[in-house]
Amino acid sequence: VRAIATAEIIAVGSEMLGPDRTDTNSPQITRRLNTLGIEVRAKRIVGDDLEGLAASVADALERVDLLVLTGGLGPTDDDLTREAVARVLGRAVREDEALVRAIRARFERRGMRMPEINRRQAQIIDGAEPLANPNGTAPGQWIEHGEQLVVLLPGPPGEMAPMLDAMIEERLGRRAGSHRLARRSVRLAGTTESHAEERLRPLYARWASRDPVIAATILAARGQLELQLSLRSADPAAGDLRLDEAVADVQDAFGGDVFSVGGQSLEEVVGALLRDRGWRIAVGESCTGGLVTGRLTEVAGSSAYLDRGVVAYSNRAKTELLGVAEDLIAAHGAVSEPVALAMAEGARHLAGVEVGVGVTGIAGPGGGTPAKPVGTVIFAVVVPERHRTRTALLPGGRSLVRLFATTAALDLVRRTILDV
Amino acid sequence: VRAIATAEIIAVGSEMLGPDRTDTNSPQITRRLNTLGIEVRAKRIVGDDLEGLAASVADALERVDLLVLTGGLGPTDDDLTREAVARVLGRAVREDEALVRAIRARFERRGMRMPEINRRQAQIIDGAEPLANPNGTAPGQWIEHGEQLVVLLPGPPGEMAPMLDAMIEERLGRRAGSHRLARRSVRLAGTTESHAEERLRPLYARWASRDPVIAATILAARGQLELQLSLRSADPAAGDLRLDEAVADVQDAFGGDVFSVGGQSLEEVVGALLRDRGWRIAVGESCTGGLVTGRLTEVAGSSAYLDRGVVAYSNRAKTELLGVAEDLIAAHGAVSEPVALAMAEGARHLAGVEVGVGVTGIAGPGGGTPAKPVGTVIFAVVVPERHRTRTALLPGGRSLVRLFATTAALDLVRRTILDV
Repeated sequence: VRAIATAEIIAVGSEMLGPDRTDTNSPQITRRLNTLGIEVRAKRIVGDDLEGLAASVADALERVDLLVLTGGLGPTDDDLTREAVARVLGRAVREDEALVRAIRARFERRGMRMPEINRRQAQIIDGAEPLANPNGTAPGQWIEHGEQLVVLLPGPPGEMAPMLDAMIEERLGRRAGSHRLARRSVRLAGTTESHAEERLRPLYARWASRDPVIAATILAARGQLELQLSLRSADPAAGDLRLDEAVADVQDAFGGDVFSVGGQSLEEVVGALLRDRGWRIAVGESCTGGLVTGRLTEVAGSSAYLDRGVVAYSNRAKTELLGVAEDLIAAHGAVSEPVALAMAEGARHLAGVEVGVGVTGIAGPGGGTPAKPVGTVIFAVVVPERHRTRTALLPGGRSLVRLFATTAALDLVRRTILDV
Repeated sequence: VRAIATAEIIAVGSEMLGPDRTDTNSPQITRRLNTLGIEVRAKRIVGDDLEGLAASVADALERVDLLVLTGGLGPTDDDLTREAVARVLGRAVREDEALVRAIRARFERRGMRMPEINRRQAQIIDGAEPLANPNGTAPGQWIEHGEQLVVLLPGPPGEMAPMLDAMIEERLGRRAGSHRLARRSVRLAGTTESHAEERLRPLYARWASRDPVIAATILAARGQLELQLSLRSADPAAGDLRLDEAVADVQDAFGGDVFSVGGQSLEEVVGALLRDRGWRIAVGESCTGGLVTGRLTEVAGSSAYLDRGVVAYSNRAKTELLGVAEDLIAAHGAVSEPVALAMAEGARHLAGVEVGVGVTGIAGPGGGTPAKPVGTVIFAVVVPERHRTRTALLPGGRSLVRLFATTAALDLVRRTILDV
C-alpha cells in the first residue's frame, strides 16, 4: 500500500459557521499528522447539511490520501457525517448491535436509560472499523477506501483528542511513510520580529542548504518570540543532531536574548533562577496593575519564592506601601527611573527578600506627554549584587502595553540575575 | 439581479495549514456578512498552490452566491489568488497602469523605490473593479460573474478589515436582500451554562414561536456567560422591539445574575458603579496573585477609583500588608471566611477607601485537603453599608481556577454594592 502523505481536515457543524465559535480541533489534528510527516493540504468547516457535506467529502477525496472529519456524529437528525461519507463512498450504513449494547451500558453505569435516538450513534459505515471513544457515546470510524483513508472523529475536543492520540499511535503510524517530523522551540525576549528575521536570514540560508532541510517559523506574542524549527527525516538520530546544531546557531546569534530552548515560559525560567539560588522576590507595580505578579504566580509552587506584590496605583500608595519618598516623586515624576528603582528597593526592603521589582509607566489611552508618550514604561530590578533599570516605549493600546510590560519586567529580572 | 444570500470564505496561505497560525479573518467577515442577512455556508483554508486553490474556487462557486477570498495577493510567486480565480472564471489578468502608479507613489512617500516584483500587485482580473487598500499595496478586487460575486481581499487583518467595512457599506449592502440581522448581548455571572440552559428553555420556545424568530447562542468564558440573541428582519424597528422584549425576558428570568445588556465587561460595570458613587477600592488577594487588580485596571481611567492592590502570598505579607491578625490565621487557616474578610477590611482600612476586597484560596495543583480541596476560593467584599463573603469550589486546573476566581471576585463586588 502507498504511504499516507497528504491530508485534508473537515470540521462539521453549523455552529462553527457563525462568527463566535471556531474549529479548535484542526490545529491539534494538524500537529499530530505533521509529526508523522503527513502534510495537511486544506481545512474546511461545513454546516449540518447533507448535500454540502457530501460535496465537500467528494471534493477532498479527489486530492488527498487521508480525510479526517470531526463532528456530526451525535444522535440527532442534524448529525449527518456518517450518511454523507457513506453516500460518497457508495456504501451502506448499518446499526452495530455490539455498539448499541456498549452505548446502553454507558448510560446504565450513570443510572440512566439510553434514549432511543442514541441508537443512531451505533450506525457504522460498511467496512468501517469503530474507534473506541472512552469519553463519550459516539465511536469514531476508520475506513480504508482503496489506497485512501477516511477517519471520522467526534467533535467535542475532550472526546476527539484522546481518540486522535490513540489512532496516531496504533494505526496511522503504520500507514504513514518512514519520515518523521522533529521539532525544537527557541524562545527569545528583548528583540522584535523584524530584527530577529534580519539576524536569522543567514541562518535560514545555511539550514536550507543542507539535508535534511530545517523549516523555521517565528511566532510573536506579548513581546516574546518563539522560533520553531522542524525537519522531516527518516533517521531520527540524525534529525535530532541537525536540530541541536540549529539551536546552537540561534544561541550564538542571539546570546542573552534566548531565555529557553526546552519550551519553558519566561515565568518558569525566572522561577527556576530564584529557586536555584534560594532567593525570594517582591514586586511593586503601577501601570501593569498586578499582571507582573499575576504572571509570576501562574507557576505552580511559586509561593516558594514570591513573597508579595503591591499594586501602587496612586502616589500615596507608592509612598505608604513601598516607601517611595514624596520628594522623589515630586522631583522626577511618578514615571521615572528614580521612582521605579525606589519601588523595587522598597518592595525588596519591606518584604525582607533578595529580589525587588519596580514597574511604572503610562499604559494609556490618557496620561501621555511629548516627553513621556503613552507606552512609556520604566522597569527596575534589584538583586543582591547589582541593580538595573530600563526605559521602554512599548507599542499598541492599553492592553498590549500592559502585556508587553509584563514580559519586559520578567525579562529584566532574568537578565539582572544572570547579568546578561 | 438576484439578491446575494449565501457565501463561502476561502483563506489562502500555507502558513495557516500548520498547527500554529489560524485564520482570524473569517470570523470578522462572517459577522459582517451576517449583518446583511447573508449566510456563510462553508469556510476553508487552502495553501499557496495553484491547482488546489483553483479547484476550491470552482467547488465553492457551484454552491454559493458570494465567494470571499482573503490572502494570496502579495507580490511574490507564491501569491496565486489572482491567477486561480482568473483561471476558474475563464478570464485574463492584465497589469493596470494606474495601480502601478499608485503602488509606486506609496513607496515614494516612504522615500523608497518600488521593487519591480510589486508590479504583480497591480494585476487585475478582466472586468474586476479594484477595491482601494488604504493600509497596504495590494488592492482588493470586486468581480461580478453572472449573478454571482467574487471578492478578493488581502490577508493581513489590518488591511482586510477596513476594506471589508467599506465594501459592506458601499457595495454589498445594495446586492444583499432586504433582510438585516440585529443582535443583542446579555452577560451573566453567578450561574453555569447548563443551569442557564435549563432556565432558558421555555424562553427559547417562546422566541421560536413568534415571527421574526430569535436565535440564541450561549458562550461561556472565565465563569461568565454571554447570551447572544439575533434575528433577521426586513423591518428594523420591529426587529429591535422583539429583541428588547427578549432581553427583558432574560432579565426577568435571571435577575441579579445579569450584569450587562450593552456589551460592557464586568470590570467596566464595577468601575461604573464605583465612579457613580465616588467610591474608591482596594484589593487584597492571595491565590489570584494580582489578577483581580489586573482586571480592574484593564479599564482606562481606573486610576480614578483603584487606590491599590496587595498580593499577600505569604502569611507574613497578609499580616504586614493587610493587618490580618496572626491569631486569626492560626485559628481558622489562611483559606477561611474570617481571613478573607480581614483581608478585605484591612485593604479598605489601610488604604482609607470605601470598598475593600479579599480573595484567598487554593489554586492548586498542590495544597488541597479533603475539607478544602483544590479550587476552594473564598471571597469577601466590604462596602460602607454591608459586607459579604462567599466560598466557591471552582473547576479546572490552576489557570482556570484563577481566572474563574477573578470573575467571582468582581461579581461579588457588584452584588455587594447593588445588594442583589
